[in-house]
Order: sequence, then structure tokens, then C-alpha cells
Amino acid sequence: MLAARAREIIRRCRLLAECSEEPGWTTRTFLSPVMRAVHSDLAAWMVDLGMNVRVDQVGNLHGVYEASRPDARRFFIGSHLDTVPRAGAFDGVLGVVLGIALVELLNGERFPFAIEVVGFSEEEGVRFGVPFIGSRAFTGSADAVLLARRDAGGVSVADAIRQYGLNPASIRDAVAESRAVGYLEFHIEQGPVLDTLGIPLGIVDMIVGQTRAEAVFTGAPGHAGTTPMARRRDALAAAAEWTVAVEREAHATPGLVATVGRVQADPGVGNVIAGRCAATLDVRHQDDTVRKATVHKLETSAREIAARRTLDVTWTARLDQPAVAMNPGLVSTLERAVRRAGAPVHHLSSGAGHDAMIVASRMPAAMLFLRSPGGLSHHPDESVTEEDVAMALEAGRHFLNELS
Amino acid sequence: MLAARAREIIRRCRLLAECSEEPGWTTRTFLSPVMRAVHSDLAAWMVDLGMNVRVDQVGNLHGVYEASRPDARRFFIGSHLDTVPRAGAFDGVLGVVLGIALVELLNGERFPFAIEVVGFSEEEGVRFGVPFIGSRAFTGSADAVLLARRDAGGVSVADAIRQYGLNPASIRDAVAESRAVGYLEFHIEQGPVLDTLGIPLGIVDMIVGQTRAEAVFTGAPGHAGTTPMARRRDALAAAAEWTVAVEREAHATPGLVATVGRVQADPGVGNVIAGRCAATLDVRHQDDTVRKATVHKLETSAREIAARRTLDVTWTARLDQPAVAMNPGLVSTLERAVRRAGAPVHHLSSGAGHDAMIVASRMPAAMLFLRSPGGLSHHPDESVTEEDVAMALEAGRHFLNELS
Repeated sequence: MLAARAREIIRRCRLLAECSEEPGWTTRTFLSPVMRAVHSDLAAWMVDLGMNVRVDQVGNLHGVYEASRPDARRFFIGSHLDTVPRAGAFDGVLGVVLGIALVELLNGERFPFAIEVVGFSEEEGVRFGVPFIGSRAFTGSADAVLLARRDAGGVSVADAIRQYGLNPASIRDAVAESRAVGYLEFHIEQGPVLDTLGIPLGIVDMIVGQTRAEAVFTGAPGHAGTTPMARRRDALAAAAEWTVAVEREAHATPGLVATVGRVQADPGVGNVIAGRCAATLDVRHQDDTVRKATVHKLETSAREIAARRTLDVTWTARLDQPAVAMNPGLVSTLERAVRRAGAPVHHLSSGAGHDAMIVASRMPAAMLFLRSPGGLSHHPDESVTEEDVAMALEAGRHFLNELS
Repeated sequence: MLAARAREIIRRCRLLAECSEEPGWTTRTFLSPVMRAVHSDLAAWMVDLGMNVRVDQVGNLHGVYEASRPDARRFFIGSHLDTVPRAGAFDGVLGVVLGIALVELLNGERFPFAIEVVGFSEEEGVRFGVPFIGSRAFTGSADAVLLARRDAGGVSVADAIRQYGLNPASIRDAVAESRAVGYLEFHIEQGPVLDTLGIPLGIVDMIVGQTRAEAVFTGAPGHAGTTPMARRRDALAAAAEWTVAVEREAHATPGLVATVGRVQADPGVGNVIAGRCAATLDVRHQDDTVRKATVHKLETSAREIAARRTLDVTWTARLDQPAVAMNPGLVSTLERAVRRAGAPVHHLSSGAGHDAMIVASRMPAAMLFLRSPGGLSHHPDESVTEEDVAMALEAGRHFLNELS
């Protein structure tokens, strides 16, 4: 019976994946018109279960399944409804569809707490370059700076909200009640760890901290044919040396990941020595101390490489986000639920950011990862297996039972 | 007196630099309308000296100063009239203006050979991605493939010639007579060697050979936060490691220059491990054997780096151009002329390509470099000093005297 429900969950996710700005792909950014169709389908499924549905003024969808008694506290189950460009069908939306399926699984049974399924309008940060617009509004931290942020076309977050027919002046209506029981987010792992271990579910202990920075090396442009090697101040060669150092440092630091994802040489022409070269840095670790120490080392390394080559380097910090621990009580409950569902208990850190990280500032939060076959994520071939979804459903039911 | 003439040469070059497609800069590509003004000024100066002026059907400007007797052979002095975008005032045009000044310096004296000053219409390769259109027509090697080559706007070389009012079917009229005495090109060094040594003039022994290639590393894209270091197949990290290896190899090989001028990661986003990364390579050396051996080593290095990281690499050769020696007889003559002008004799290779390299296939060719202060080239601040131009004029006069 759970297998049939799991199949239906996957079918629904794939159906919603067709709501896209780009035909043939799944691309759904903050409050794009196609979000209405997603809301419409989800709302229909919620209403069928007797849930009360509303869309708040930041575009989050809420469906409330009432408690066994009036005026009860709420437990939230949610994730996000937006996607990266050319995304898969499960990142985000699975957590919402699975939440609805869990409610369905209760078959009318009521708990001493209400269950509210939330679909956040924005998590990926694609359109405005900042993520978590939906969950920030949900926790009351969507401020004027966020609302004034503009996309590539000059449209602000507030404008986009208005264009969708909502009222940015009223986004406080998205804020969750302060006496919430907690929040649970189901999400695909977006990495290879569970798949490699052959384990269906992973209990998230924490969402790792993250540093983003940019190192810009400045030397002197030169003619590739007429400038002797000894006379060069090659900014691209410096950036390359540093990129190798970043990788070496990451390998030497257990649990750390560090990535240079872009190296942009100026002028960036084959027969001209680059006078300027910008390189991005992304560093993550569950221990903020280790992360910060590593970033410091890498900045020092950039400065040393630049100095030895008589180049300048400017270092710009773009993000310094501390690690966020999931609620220990909910983690224990989740552990028991996973065990009762018959799955091996495996704890892990999330290397990616998630809404749970934002929500954790307002209420106890927990996350359950579903294995990503091949570790694929942010890719049309991203998938989940029926067996894993059934296992997650089962664990979710035990979790709610434990809670009540 | 030479100082005044040198001053006038510099003034003329700066005047011609104002003939530009882009106000405030010097940008003059193949047969752009502004070339008419350049032709018009140069032709006026030539006509003043009694030279016979014509523009051939590929847009080269020719001015003939007749010999002391009819039907004499010709000696050519020339360089190119086009520029890179936002160029300096001397690259190319100096060689033409200096040629005219040399004729003026003769003050009516005639030699047993005619002197033909040539301004080539194209050398930089900016508009059509292939260089030397002018000198290729001059040597008879501008073929149908070249004429069919299209610019970014879809306009072919033949179309451009027609749009300028010339006839591409008749470009054989650009071909130099086969019994030419030789060719001399004055050009700024475009590098720091003479300036570093404190020497005004450099005698070019050869124009070095050049390889251009591209290495494309292909790994697997991945989430920067969720993919452990040990599981990565990071194409950008591979390209960086290879870039460092290229630089190391170049430093270890005397006289060799090797440049990675562009590294393009895909997707090229800070929080995504690059699944693909293309890196350009430019290698030059005066000895073709050394150059080819180095390129082979660097290709092997790319393959080894890729294999160790379980990446693929594709290697694409873009150019394999042999070194071109200048004519030994003219080089000796130039050496004596420079010595008689009172300048130190310094021989060097040209790391950059020049029209002389093309012309050498048809007649004895030689080049004289003028010091580039600061090694600046392809830059609005590119310059020459009055003293060096005067010295080049003096050497040029001795050169012509020696020849006759």
C-alpha cells in the first residue's frame, strides 16, 4: 500500500515538474506565473483531505490539517516550490508532496497538534541572487533590504510580489506562529553519500556553515609572444596556482569541501597574458572554527602567491554563514522513527543550504534526506526510488505518532 | 634635423590614430570606412614627394619613388595600417610613416632600385579571425578560402572589399613583382626586451614559430556543498593544475614562452563544481623542434592530469606555424647600418607575427624593431621616443645607401 502511495508521490512531483517557464525543462523561479499551476494542483490535493489552504503575501502555500482539539499548536512539514534552471523533479517539491501524502496516510486520524504543510515560494536564490525568500518571510526575517533587491531585469522582490497579485506590505502574514511544535523537511540528499553507502534515508544533524569569497589577482596584461617568462605578471597563472592550493588544502582537511567554480581572466584571450583574473571560492564545514581557519589559510595563500609573483590581490568576502544544528529532540524522534520504519539509522551533515536552516531560528527543526541515485541533483535526471519514498513515508508516520 | 623629422613622424602617427571606428580610441579594422582618411593623408604625403600612389584591390596602399633608371627592380618598405581594438598609435602605421620619411630624407636622391612604400590593409586578424589579409594578397597567397571567410556579422572578406568600392576578383593586382630586391619593416618591438636592455633598435633574426591549441577537460558537474572532495571530477581543478604545469615547463625551457590566456569553466558558477573546462595554449620558440617537443610534453601532461583525476581531455590544435628566418644578407646590411647610425647592434627574435613573416615567402625580408617603452603594446599608452625614431631613420638611410 505504501508502494502505491510512493508511486503517486513520484507521479505528482513529475506532474508539477511540467509547470515550467521553459518548455521541455523544469525552471521555476520566484513567483513566476507557472507557480499558480503548482499552487492550484497542490491546493486541490490538500482540499481533498479537508485541509484549509491559503497563499500568503510572499507566495508561500499553506495547508492546515486541524488538530484533535481547537486552538492547538502546529507542526509544520514543508520545503520549497521553486527550482534552479533546468532542474530535476524532486528538489524541494518532494518535501511538500510527501507532507500532503503523510496527511493522507493519517486517514482522518487527528493529533493534539495541527499539521501545516508549507510550500515555500523561493529557496534557490536564482532570480534575485539571494536564497530563502519564502522561509525568511515565514520566520519574520524578510526585511526591506530583501524586498528592495532587484533581479537582472531591474524588478524588485516587492515588484515581483505585486506582479503576482500579492501585497508586499502585508508579508508579515507569512510569519509562523511563535508557539509552533516544530518543522520537518523531507528533501533529496543532493549528494552521493547515501547512495554510496546503500542507505535509503539520512538524518540531518546539522547544515554546514559556508563561506563564499572572491579573490581577484591583478598583474599586467602582456603579449603572449613578446613577453619573456621572467618578465610576466600573469594573473591567470596566479589564480591557477591558488586553485591548486585550495584543492590541496580541502583534501588535507577532513570533512571540508572547497571549490573554485569559476576563473575569469581578463582579457581572456588565448594570445594575451591575463592582467586580471577573478576566482570564486566556496568553503563548507560542519565546524565553523575549522571553516574559518581554512578560509584564513586560503586567503593567506592567495596573498603569498600574489606577493611572490609581484601581483596584487583583493579578497572579497561574499558570505559567512554559520553552521546550523538541527533540534536534538526532533533528531532523536526522527532516529527512532527511521529505526521503526526498518531503515538503517545514518546521521549526516547537509553540505547544501535548506529552508530548515532558516526555520531553525524560529522553531525546532529537523530534516530527513532521501537517497539521490548517482548523487544527481540540480539536473533533469535527478530521481528518487519508490522504495525510498515509501520508507520516508513510513518513517514520517512513525515520527508524527512519536510526537503526539 | 633628424630630431625634427622624428617629431614629425610621431605627430603623423598620432594624427592617423584619430582615424578610428570608435571615438576617443584607436580602432581600425580591415577596410573600415575610416581607412579612407588614413589613405588620404598618407597619399598626400607621398604625392608631395613625387611618389606614384595607388590602392590595390585588397586595400593596400602603395607609393612608388622611382629609381635612377627606368625599369629598375623595387625595394619595399612597409607595415600595416589596421589596428587592434583600442590600440596605440604606432603598431603598424609607424613602419609606413617612417618609410615615407626615409624617402623624404633622400631629398630627391635616386637609387638604382625604386622604393615602394606599402601600407597593408590588414595584419591584426581582428575582424575575420585570420591575420595578414593585406600581405597575403601582396605575396599572392590570398585564396578563395580567405576571401570567403566571414566576420561576426556574416560579411565575407570579398563582401568587405566590395563594400569599400574595390573588386575582389582583381586582388591579384596586389601581388608584388617577383624580381623584388627585398622588404624592410620598421615596427615597435611590442615587448620589453630592448627597453630593459636600454637599447633603441633591435635587428630581427627570425619570427618565432607558434602553436595554438585548446585543452578541454571533462569531468562531472557537482554540488559544491554535497560532493565530498574524494568523489569529485573537477574539470576546473584539472585545468588549473595543467596551467601551473604549462608555466613551469616554459620557465624550464630557455627562450620559450607559453601562455594560458583563458580558462573557461562550465557552468562557471561559484557553488557548482565545473564539469567541463576549456583552457587555451599559446607556445612560441625560435626553434620549431623545441616548440613541438614542448607542445607534445604539455599535451602529455594534460592527458596525465586528466587520467589521474579520471577526467577526459580533448586536445585541439589550432595553429602550428613554423619559425620564419629573416634574410641573412639583409640582416647583415641592417647590422652595418645600425652600427653606422651609432646604435648598439642587438639581434633578437620576434615573438609576435608580422607582415615580414608573410612577405619573406616571396622576397628577401628584414625587420628593425624600435624600443617599446615599458614594453607596452596593443594599448593606448603604447609609445616610441623621438630619439629612437631618429635613430631608426638614420639606420634606414644607411641601409638604403648600403643596398645601392
